Amino acid sequence: MSELRHDPLQRRWVIIASERMQRPKDFIVQREKKKSSEGCPFCPGHEDMTPPEIIAIRNDHSEPDTPGWRVRVTQNKFPALKLTDNPAWKPNDEFYESTPGLGTHEVIIEGTQHNNCLADSHPDFIFEILCMYRSRLVTLMNDNRLKYALIFKNHGSTAGASLAHPHSQIIAMPIVPRTVEIELLASERHYDQQRTCLICDMIKNERKSGSRVIFLDEAMIAFNSYAARFPFEMFVAPLDHHHDFSHASDYQLRHLAECLGDVLSRLKYALDDPPFNYILHTSPNLNFDESYRDGSDRLDLYYHWHLEIIPRLTRTAGFEWGSGLHINPMPPERAAEFLRSVEL
Amino acid sequence: MSELRHDPLQRRWVIIASERMQRPKDFIVQREKKKSSEGCPFCPGHEDMTPPEIIAIRNDHSEPDTPGWRVRVTQNKFPALKLTDNPAWKPNDEFYESTPGLGTHEVIIEGTQHNNCLADSHPDFIFEILCMYRSRLVTLMNDNRLKYALIFKNHGSTAGASLAHPHSQIIAMPIVPRTVEIELLASERHYDQQRTCLICDMIKNERKSGSRVIFLDEAMIAFNSYAARFPFEMFVAPLDHHHDFSHASDYQLRHLAECLGDVLSRLKYALDDPPFNYILHTSPNLNFDESYRDGSDRLDLYYHWHLEIIPRLTRTAGFEWGSGLHINPMPPERAAEFLRSVEL
Repeated sequence: MSELRHDPLQRRWVIIASERMQRPKDFIVQREKKKSSEGCPFCPGHEDMTPPEIIAIRNDHSEPDTPGWRVRVTQNKFPALKLTDNPAWKPNDEFYESTPGLGTHEVIIEGTQHNNCLADSHPDFIFEILCMYRSRLVTLMNDNRLKYALIFKNHGSTAGASLAHPHSQIIAMPIVPRTVEIELLASERHYDQQRTCLICDMIKNERKSGSRVIFLDEAMIAFNSYAARFPFEMFVAPLDHHHDFSHASDYQLRHLAECLGDVLSRLKYALDDPPFNYILHTSPNLNFDESYRDGSDRLDLYYHWHLEIIPRLTRTAGFEWGSGLHINPMPPERAAEFLRSVEL
Repeated sequence: MSELRHDPLQRRWVIIASERMQRPKDFIVQREKKKSSEGCPFCPGHEDMTPPEIIAIRNDHSEPDTPGWRVRVTQNKFPALKLTDNPAWKPNDEFYESTPGLGTHEVIIEGTQHNNCLADSHPDFIFEILCMYRSRLVTLMNDNRLKYALIFKNHGSTAGASLAHPHSQIIAMPIVPRTVEIELLASERHYDQQRTCLICDMIKNERKSGSRVIFLDEAMIAFNSYAARFPFEMFVAPLDHHHDFSHASDYQLRHLAECLGDVLSRLKYALDDPPFNYILHTSPNLNFDESYRDGSDRLDLYYHWHLEIIPRLTRTAGFEWGSGLHINPMPPERAAEFLRSVEL
């Protein structure tokens, strides 16, 4: 029979519908045709097709906006948010709350190889990308107009990637998004009651149980979430309590690179390169003027940065959008068993 | 420039990215191939392909599970939840909260015509379907094991419909889903502060502004939501305050049938029969034993049933899943203007 499971961090239920269970291989979706590199704005030599370079990791002393880079950051050509003043902006409606779309929307181009992906990258290269994430977070969180910066990756067009060349994105915004706000609230309440970090306690439990763990070394853990919304959904976090990715140590990022390379390879080779998203959840900007809640000064005690990996193998329908509840036909324990069994 | 808009009912922000705006017609997605009626379990004569009939509206004195029906309700063949005891069930994990998947999952088959749809149905027939929704809600909410029943429709395979024959579904569950819980909390707070219903106030504002209204008669309103997550997302509600769809009057349902027929036709003919979901939000079961929050006894004062229509023309990517924030490239005022201009 099915089971309802509660996610204490996201404060939501999920239906684990074992009766609808399929074999892991049945989740494989049709592999997307790779788009050719012709006309790809992210390939070297095409630097003039993107907005100007913000920063890059370069092999040599090559000039910005020319080849020679390994990781390159530019504004998104069609930004969702921009840091431009528009004195003409005024609310469209007096009843509702609104605010100008001040923020940034950057693209992190991950390497020069059009058809590469993180799953097949060397951990040293993944480490460089993670260092770039950290560096951009530090810079963006120094701007007091920005309350939150969300780093995410869309892999495959079903997962929302409009360009095939490997890249991630950062959207920095003048609000704390609801998903993060719910996590902060849940973590704070847990801390107030238990004097422990909720995610530290989740990790402790996952290590004890072991049934959902996919990767574990001395610094990092990856496991299939107990209340996973999506088949093979994963949660990646540092073992040591740490709230802010922008202050992650090189040691942590080296281990995260190993971990990410491992679990993304498992996903790729187990399920024939499925579309996926990943999202980094870290603490908001502590410098912003108005504290949106009490207790934000204790964020370092109760929050814990982590990465969520969401393979996009199933469709979300009216039920999910209307309830916030997901029906997941793949028990996370089975998903973990399958992913662990992949030979790399 | 973009704008961040806040939805007071769902307590979430949305980015209205006017700079990414496309012409309304650019949102048209490739029309899905209609599946033939061959082997369709919902077509008349195939009643033995579904679980036994729960209830049906019949023309004549025909027997259950035989042709002669106009609207027919059965259990879903692959139910997400079931009302069966399983004494063997025990939690998989001590740390997390879980509960057996007790509930029901029903299918409402809407007519005998395999290729029909609500947009092309006579309001009298839509009224019959809505009466069936009401009737099922009354029955399900009399079961104290069930706290909430969500009625929803998936139209088109992109929107999650696995069968083309027109149908809706009801999932009744032992919890109140998070989306509804957030709406209840927001409505209660608004009531406590203003002594008015939040949705009544939203409707008042929409009528005053007019810029987002698509349909308005003496009983019902449909408008593009101010903080729409999706292009052409609509909100439908009765003008008079009413919290519980299971007690909606025939008068209200007749007007809802007119309204639904109108706006779904506009959607169909404006955007070439796009995939969509709709979801009914009504108050939870007030009879359940443990009151999950204080103030649930005042639900009739502060909640207001409504229907959300979500066309599925864009993809949700890592940003949306990670933040709960959506990027909507179609300003709701433009969407409403376009839908109003459709000649029916």
